Amino acid sequence: MQFLRLGPVGDERPAVRADDGTTYDLLPVTAKISTSSDIDGAFLANDGVNRVRAALEAGELSAIETDGLRIGPPLAHPGKVICIGLNYRDHAEETGADIPGEPVMFLKTPDTIVGPYDEVLVPRRSVKTDWEVELGVVIGRTARYLESEEDALACVGAYVLSHDVSEREFQIERGGTWDKGKNCETFNPLGPFLVPADEIADPQSLEMRLWVNGEIKQNSSTKNMIFPVAEIVRYLSQFLVLRPGDVINTGTPAGVALGQPEPKPYLRAGDVVELEIEGLGKQRQTLGQA
Amino acid sequence: MQFLRLGPVGDERPAVRADDGTTYDLLPVTAKISTSSDIDGAFLANDGVNRVRAALEAGELSAIETDGLRIGPPLAHPGKVICIGLNYRDHAEETGADIPGEPVMFLKTPDTIVGPYDEVLVPRRSVKTDWEVELGVVIGRTARYLESEEDALACVGAYVLSHDVSEREFQIERGGTWDKGKNCETFNPLGPFLVPADEIADPQSLEMRLWVNGEIKQNSSTKNMIFPVAEIVRYLSQFLVLRPGDVINTGTPAGVALGQPEPKPYLRAGDVVELEIEGLGKQRQTLGQA
Repeated sequence: MQFLRLGPVGDERPAVRADDGTTYDLLPVTAKISTSSDIDGAFLANDGVNRVRAALEAGELSAIETDGLRIGPPLAHPGKVICIGLNYRDHAEETGADIPGEPVMFLKTPDTIVGPYDEVLVPRRSVKTDWEVELGVVIGRTARYLESEEDALACVGAYVLSHDVSEREFQIERGGTWDKGKNCETFNPLGPFLVPADEIADPQSLEMRLWVNGEIKQNSSTKNMIFPVAEIVRYLSQFLVLRPGDVINTGTPAGVALGQPEPKPYLRAGDVVELEIEGLGKQRQTLGQA
Repeated sequence: MQFLRLGPVGDERPAVRADDGTTYDLLPVTAKISTSSDIDGAFLANDGVNRVRAALEAGELSAIETDGLRIGPPLAHPGKVICIGLNYRDHAEETGADIPGEPVMFLKTPDTIVGPYDEVLVPRRSVKTDWEVELGVVIGRTARYLESEEDALACVGAYVLSHDVSEREFQIERGGTWDKGKNCETFNPLGPFLVPADEIADPQSLEMRLWVNGEIKQNSSTKNMIFPVAEIVRYLSQFLVLRPGDVINTGTPAGVALGQPEPKPYLRAGDVVELEIEGLGKQRQTLGQA
C-alpha cells in the first residue's frame, strides 16, 4: 500500500495505491481522520493506515485516473525535518570526517520539501550543490525519552525516499552549523509515496542508488548505516520531542560530489538526478537556477 | 499596539491591546484575514496590522477581561525558527569563540515555542541548561535574495521577546551541530506580545535584561549586536526563503551560565528566570524537570 498526494503545488489531493496497482481517492477517509483532510501527522497518529486498509477491503474507495497528474510530496504539513549526518562509514571517510560515536544531528525546515519530480534549484552564488539519497522515516506516534529500540520502532509510521540536497560551501565554509547549506529552497524532494512501517519487513536491508545524468554515483544499502533507524529514533527522543508528521532523514552513503577527486562534479542547472530505494519508489529532478 | 493570544495551551484566542491599555477580542478581524483565524504569517502578510488599526479607530472591536487568562505565545503556526549565534561580541568572548565574520546560523523547531510564563523543562540527564535573552524578529513578507538592508527591514512584520533556552553539553559536547542542545521541549518561550515593526523606532537601541532567581545576569542592548537585524534578514535570504510567520532569534549578549567561572550556575528545577526587552514586555518562567 502506497500513500501519495496528486495535483498541482499546494493543491494536492490524497490518494492510495493498492497492491494491485489501482489508485483510489483517499479524501473520504482523510476527511474523517485529520482536520487538514490530508495525509499528515494526525492521519498517521489516528490509525489512518488501518482505516484505509479496512476501507479498501470494504470496497468503499473510488478508483481515480492518475495520468498527467503531478506527484507531490506524500506528507502534508510535516512538523520538522531532523537529519542524521555521517551515518554511513564510507561517506564519513570520503568527507574526511571521523566516524561519529553517537548520531550527528542537524535540521532542515519543512518548507524545503518539494515533490519527487519537481525542479531543484541551484542557489544563487552556489558552486557546490550536491546530492544525497536517504531513507526517510515518518513519525506516527509522539516520542519522548524512549527507553528501547523496540519502543522506537513502534513510533515509526511510514518510510519514504528522501533527497537531502546540500550546498557544501554554505554547509562547511561559511561559519556556523551545517544548517546554512541544507535549507535552500527546494532542497528536500520527498516521495513519491509513503509506505506504512508495517509493510517494510526490515528497514535495514533496503538497496539505495542515485544517478547523475545517467551515471551511477551512490550504490549502497541501508544495512550499512552506523546507527540503524531504531537507534536513531530512540536517541533523538532524548533531545527533542518526536511528533506525528515529523520526518527523519537518516543519512547518505558514499558517492556524493564532495567525496570525488577534483574537479568535484557539483550540480549545475540542467543536470538530472535520479534516485531510488528498494520498495520506496524513484525520484527524478532536473536542476534549475534560482 | 500589542498582539497577544490568551487562553489555555492549544486553545488561545487572538487579542490586541491598544495604547490605552484596553484589550480587545481580535477574532472578528483575524477570521477575515487568515484561514487559521489567528495571529499568524497570513495575518501579517495580508496587512493585518493596518486592518486592526482601522478596526480599533472605527470602534469595531469588543473589549475583553484578561484577568486570570494564560498568555500564550503571540504567534500561531510559526513556520520556522532561525537563530543567529555569537551575535554579541561580549558573548562570543565569554564562550571563547572567535568573533564571526558573517552571521552564524542554526535552527530551532517551532514546536519548542511555549508561552512567556509557561514552565520550562530541564531535560532528563541535562547538567548544563542555560538561558539566553534575545530579540525575536517575525517575518511579515516573503524574502528571497534580498539586495539591501532597506528591503530586508520591509520584510519584518513584528518584534517579540524570545528566550533561546540552550543545553550546553548537548549543544557542544555531543557531536554534530548546535541544534542538539537547542531543541528540547519548551526551549523557546516567546512573547508576551508582538509589536508591529513600524512601532519600534529603532530595533538596534532596545535595552535587554535577564535575571535568575532575582539576580541580574544579562544586561545589555540590541545596539551591541555584531550584525544588526537588517543585515541578518538580508543575509539569511541568500540561503533560505524567509516566509511570513517565520521567527529569527537574533542572538544573546554576555552573561549566560556558560560564560561564568566554575562552578557555572546552570539552571535546575525550581529556578526562576525573568527577562525583558524595552518595549517588548517581560517573561517569567519557573524551571521544571522533564
